[in-house]
Amino acid sequence: MSKNHMINRLALIGVGMIGGSFILSLKQAGLVNYVIGVDTNIDELDAATELGIIDSKSSIDGLYDIDVIVIATPVGATQSVFASLKDKPFIDTAIIIDVGSTKQSVINATQSALGYLPENFVPSHPIAGREYIGVRHSENMMFHGHGCIITPHAKSSQSAIENVTFLWQACGAHVERMSAGNHDKILAATSHLPHVLAYGLMESLATTEYEIPIFNYAAGGFKSFTRTASSNPVMWRDICLNNSTEILYWLDHYQDTLSEIRALIAEGDSHAIIEVFSRAKSERDKYLVNKL
Amino acid sequence: MSKNHMINRLALIGVGMIGGSFILSLKQAGLVNYVIGVDTNIDELDAATELGIIDSKSSIDGLYDIDVIVIATPVGATQSVFASLKDKPFIDTAIIIDVGSTKQSVINATQSALGYLPENFVPSHPIAGREYIGVRHSENMMFHGHGCIITPHAKSSQSAIENVTFLWQACGAHVERMSAGNHDKILAATSHLPHVLAYGLMESLATTEYEIPIFNYAAGGFKSFTRTASSNPVMWRDICLNNSTEILYWLDHYQDTLSEIRALIAEGDSHAIIEVFSRAKSERDKYLVNKL
Repeated sequence: MSKNHMINRLALIGVGMIGGSFILSLKQAGLVNYVIGVDTNIDELDAATELGIIDSKSSIDGLYDIDVIVIATPVGATQSVFASLKDKPFIDTAIIIDVGSTKQSVINATQSALGYLPENFVPSHPIAGREYIGVRHSENMMFHGHGCIITPHAKSSQSAIENVTFLWQACGAHVERMSAGNHDKILAATSHLPHVLAYGLMESLATTEYEIPIFNYAAGGFKSFTRTASSNPVMWRDICLNNSTEILYWLDHYQDTLSEIRALIAEGDSHAIIEVFSRAKSERDKYLVNKL
Repeated sequence: MSKNHMINRLALIGVGMIGGSFILSLKQAGLVNYVIGVDTNIDELDAATELGIIDSKSSIDGLYDIDVIVIATPVGATQSVFASLKDKPFIDTAIIIDVGSTKQSVINATQSALGYLPENFVPSHPIAGREYIGVRHSENMMFHGHGCIITPHAKSSQSAIENVTFLWQACGAHVERMSAGNHDKILAATSHLPHVLAYGLMESLATTEYEIPIFNYAAGGFKSFTRTASSNPVMWRDICLNNSTEILYWLDHYQDTLSEIRALIAEGDSHAIIEVFSRAKSERDKYLVNKL
């Protein structure tokens, strides 16, 4: 990356909604000359070409002279991506960014594949997305006004951190730095758990027999509650497998809470139910005021 | 109610968002002359007057010459409302509509309070709402394009059913008729359970200690998942107490499903996780296509 942050050749590995949105944002900011797309899905590569997101396509093997590597695959592919990049001359000179929803697993996979952690690698997680799948859903304002958590590893260089921060800020994101461990704990609560719960609700209702098609009677509350259950199953399978400890930690707390609420309803404990619902409402209203 | 469905004097008992929206819709359709508001909350009555929703206020005792009674209180108040209406001359001539989210409990409370079920009473549940509280959030298009389930009791007259159907249709709702039992079972799954789950998530996260304020890192998925947790705690307490059997039925199924998913994540069963998430996604996507 040059002094003026201009990226000459960027490799986007994993061409989907988030990677595509990152490229659209960088192109809009005038920060990238040429983007090479790498994906196993030829339809996504064609769509990305058509949308002007990538300028050419390649295999990882065919990549050369890369200044910035963006890894935007489901997190489960991280290790094999780094294994394929291992012997590339640019692996220790290019800035490396990932966009995965789990961070410690990405760092571990990198260490496993390379045997070390590149100093130009700054693990990142933009807190944004949609419940859609594919590069056609890319938006150049996807990250605008959203948080982006970076979790530098022990060897990330100061200049790489600054460069990556600059790029996310150029996409309109507020960059915040924390440890991979804190990231994984927090996002398990606010993102991973709700996704699991929404998938779980659809699964539970769809597999419980009833004489009438219940989904015909679902209204707005149901629609918003289950929105995340329309998300990419492969991406979320990978997140569950790669942050399982933290997700199960919050899931266990949640099931305990549900059991307590169950008992209150079964006992008809009006006072305690109102207390729980009021506290929940006040927490959410406070969070909304803080956030929006 | 006259032959042309014009309502001369309507009593709105429980002046809030849903009752207010019903009146605004009827007034827009030119179907009501004069509305008397009854509520224990004087602020709501003042707001409803200011908004042109009610034309005067009264106690239940002070009501006279009423053609249509709309009961739009939290469902827990149904019995005491009917008890207060018991000796009114218009109780057996006026059309009676409620808008409660539970139906068998409303019918039972009516029977309890009056000792019989008025033939002009047609229990109703418009499947619409917002996560806000109060008559100021009333909208004249609240029910437009939404379903409204009516659950006539054994003694509801054909003419009352026709009149009530006409009024909901005049609000833009699609009216569907089913038994109170089916209503309560279905709505427990698609509405009551998701509300309990959203309240539960806020409660669970808010009561689990962590060094970092996790809600600062919540994104769109969390916001939509927990939207219903901003709903009226009194209304939802009443729903839980008045449809507890059905809610617990679905909640138990849900807990079982979560436990199964928990086991899959703990075992790292990639194949089974993808199967569950894909089925959930396909069910939701199908439902969205059917519904929107």
